[in-house]
Amino acid sequence: MTTLITPEIPKGTRDFLPKDMVRREFVLEKIKSVFVNFGYDTIETPAIEYAKTIHGNYGENESKLTYTFNDHGGRKLALRYDQTVPFARFVASNYQNLPMPFKRYQISPVWRADKPARGRYREFHQCDIDIIGTDSLMAEGEIARVIVSVFEALGFEDLVFRFNSRRLMNNILSRLRIALDKQLPVIRLLDKLEKIGKGAVGEELRKILPEEKADALLKTVGVTGTNEEKMRFLEEYSPSEIREFIRISEAFEVPTRYLKFDPSLSRGLDYYTGLIFKVSLPDVKLGAVCAGGRYDDLCSTFSREKFSGVGAAFAFDRIMLAMEELDMLKDVRLNSQVLVTYLDEETLPNSLRIVNSLREAQINAEIYFQSDRLSKQLRYAEKKGNSVCYHLWS
Amino acid sequence: MTTLITPEIPKGTRDFLPKDMVRREFVLEKIKSVFVNFGYDTIETPAIEYAKTIHGNYGENESKLTYTFNDHGGRKLALRYDQTVPFARFVASNYQNLPMPFKRYQISPVWRADKPARGRYREFHQCDIDIIGTDSLMAEGEIARVIVSVFEALGFEDLVFRFNSRRLMNNILSRLRIALDKQLPVIRLLDKLEKIGKGAVGEELRKILPEEKADALLKTVGVTGTNEEKMRFLEEYSPSEIREFIRISEAFEVPTRYLKFDPSLSRGLDYYTGLIFKVSLPDVKLGAVCAGGRYDDLCSTFSREKFSGVGAAFAFDRIMLAMEELDMLKDVRLNSQVLVTYLDEETLPNSLRIVNSLREAQINAEIYFQSDRLSKQLRYAEKKGNSVCYHLWS
Repeated sequence: MTTLITPEIPKGTRDFLPKDMVRREFVLEKIKSVFVNFGYDTIETPAIEYAKTIHGNYGENESKLTYTFNDHGGRKLALRYDQTVPFARFVASNYQNLPMPFKRYQISPVWRADKPARGRYREFHQCDIDIIGTDSLMAEGEIARVIVSVFEALGFEDLVFRFNSRRLMNNILSRLRIALDKQLPVIRLLDKLEKIGKGAVGEELRKILPEEKADALLKTVGVTGTNEEKMRFLEEYSPSEIREFIRISEAFEVPTRYLKFDPSLSRGLDYYTGLIFKVSLPDVKLGAVCAGGRYDDLCSTFSREKFSGVGAAFAFDRIMLAMEELDMLKDVRLNSQVLVTYLDEETLPNSLRIVNSLREAQINAEIYFQSDRLSKQLRYAEKKGNSVCYHLWS
Repeated sequence: MTTLITPEIPKGTRDFLPKDMVRREFVLEKIKSVFVNFGYDTIETPAIEYAKTIHGNYGENESKLTYTFNDHGGRKLALRYDQTVPFARFVASNYQNLPMPFKRYQISPVWRADKPARGRYREFHQCDIDIIGTDSLMAEGEIARVIVSVFEALGFEDLVFRFNSRRLMNNILSRLRIALDKQLPVIRLLDKLEKIGKGAVGEELRKILPEEKADALLKTVGVTGTNEEKMRFLEEYSPSEIREFIRISEAFEVPTRYLKFDPSLSRGLDYYTGLIFKVSLPDVKLGAVCAGGRYDDLCSTFSREKFSGVGAAFAFDRIMLAMEELDMLKDVRLNSQVLVTYLDEETLPNSLRIVNSLREAQINAEIYFQSDRLSKQLRYAEKKGNSVCYHLWS
């Protein structure tokens, strides 16, 4: 007897069975149909890019988490680590053939040599939309509306759209005379507020800022109240972008109750330059299910052309988790509807005629492949999700 | 000025623009809907597998064309080379949770470090269906019907479904007393008939077989006439499987005119054991657009369980090429339908109300993001495929 190869898959990767796929596709189709409804087109970029494309655009940390290998001519390649860098490369390659502003959605797998954990995979799908080539705040408003429509289409009844402005944050940091080289570290600390709490962040802040500045900053960004009250409190730092964004979002019919201006929201990434946001679902404890913001220059490493834009990334795996937890997918069934049984040779031609006509009538139907015991055929029908069994007696 | 990274992609990979994607998705959706209509479910396996999984299942040639790399713990991984080996691994891992017979379709990218050429890529999509867990010829009949339905759904009016039986081929080879160790090389030569012609194959055959055997073989498998005439000519080799397959296919309403019994059809792969087939489109010169056959033991390298089945692989890129060539995709449009223009601040609230209602009515609509010249907005509308422009005068 030859030795068998153990049929195992790498840690952090997954097999999806039909029952998993039908739920994933149900959710993806709903999401896509909203994107399409708003005039977003999709593109595809290769999963393998030149390593220089990938590594030239991430910090050391991300680069370390990239899978790299040589092609057979000795050139270094890398697997897609996220969709943003390939999208920037794509725009730099193709912008002359793209409508501007360019509105695209993209859903594809990415790979990260990360330590697997609950909800953290080495191969997973990202789901992004971006509008590039416009400075107009209309883009932010539309993206907010797309996000609301996505979660509504999926059946969620509530969400919190927390947002802030990097410009406002910069104004606050400047007015508090926080040195430029300390601003990004400070922003990265504020980004941890949700995770580690005000006390811990304050402690860390006091390590890089004089105590009174640290306290003033926390007090300023920690203001509570309604959106209007917070804006008034921050009037001296000119929260005009916040005011304008709320006005435009409302014109896009984003329900005001979803919008929560949060002056402490930071998002650790340094490429954000304008409005930033993070969406969560109050019905589940999961963290952000969508996040994004305005960046000034998407393609800076690839092109001298400037492409400003707004992007949002949906956390597809978390959304799946939330919907499973809230039992929102219990009615999603496998595709097959009718099983026509196989009784014997004599009735087979009739059974085949029936399955042929059902299929032609766009009813998803199958025929059992041999004249097995009826109980076995019924068990098969059930496993395949067929809700009707068509059985002919001779 | 910093040096820019050239925005290029590896040879043999492709960027797909919205106009490409909308055609690809149109075709894929049609194909999928047929699979679903016949009760096939989809699965997903990781793009990265352990290298042993991949290399333990291919010859040296295929293994050389696989992209391999180490994960961060030093284990050897490989990118999916085709869908068959991962499917075999998947079945061996999960068969206890699958309905049997298991009917699945799968459409996903695969990677091959091959020399790129017209129509040959390093990253491309495969599109497979398989029925495993049954010996019944009903499976072959159904797969033939699925194939016909796919090409009909895509709008093709003609196809040639060439088929043969490995059992019949084995009977012929045995009756001609061709030694067992020469049978696979002979089959591989016969597989080249279409490509290099009868003369060249004959010459090669004579190098490994005595001249009279080579000639007898070519005469036997080269028989011409109707399916019935060929079967009668080959009666002594018992073409019962051929006869039975034709009967069952007709019961599945496969039009008889498509079915072409070709006793010389061989398919070079050694894992086929029963019916084999190759589908081509007479309207284009492209080679096979679909091919497959019956195998005895899908998971032999992974499991002692036996899974016999029938599979078919659709050549998605070739099908796209054929449809472009025959101008069958000219009416496929981008998804957006209506552009609402942005005249000025005063009319904007009205424009937004219109775009909001259009979207709510499931009409794919967009609004222009700033008050540009009308000509520019119209150019954008055209580029995005919007067929209607909604313009408000104040």
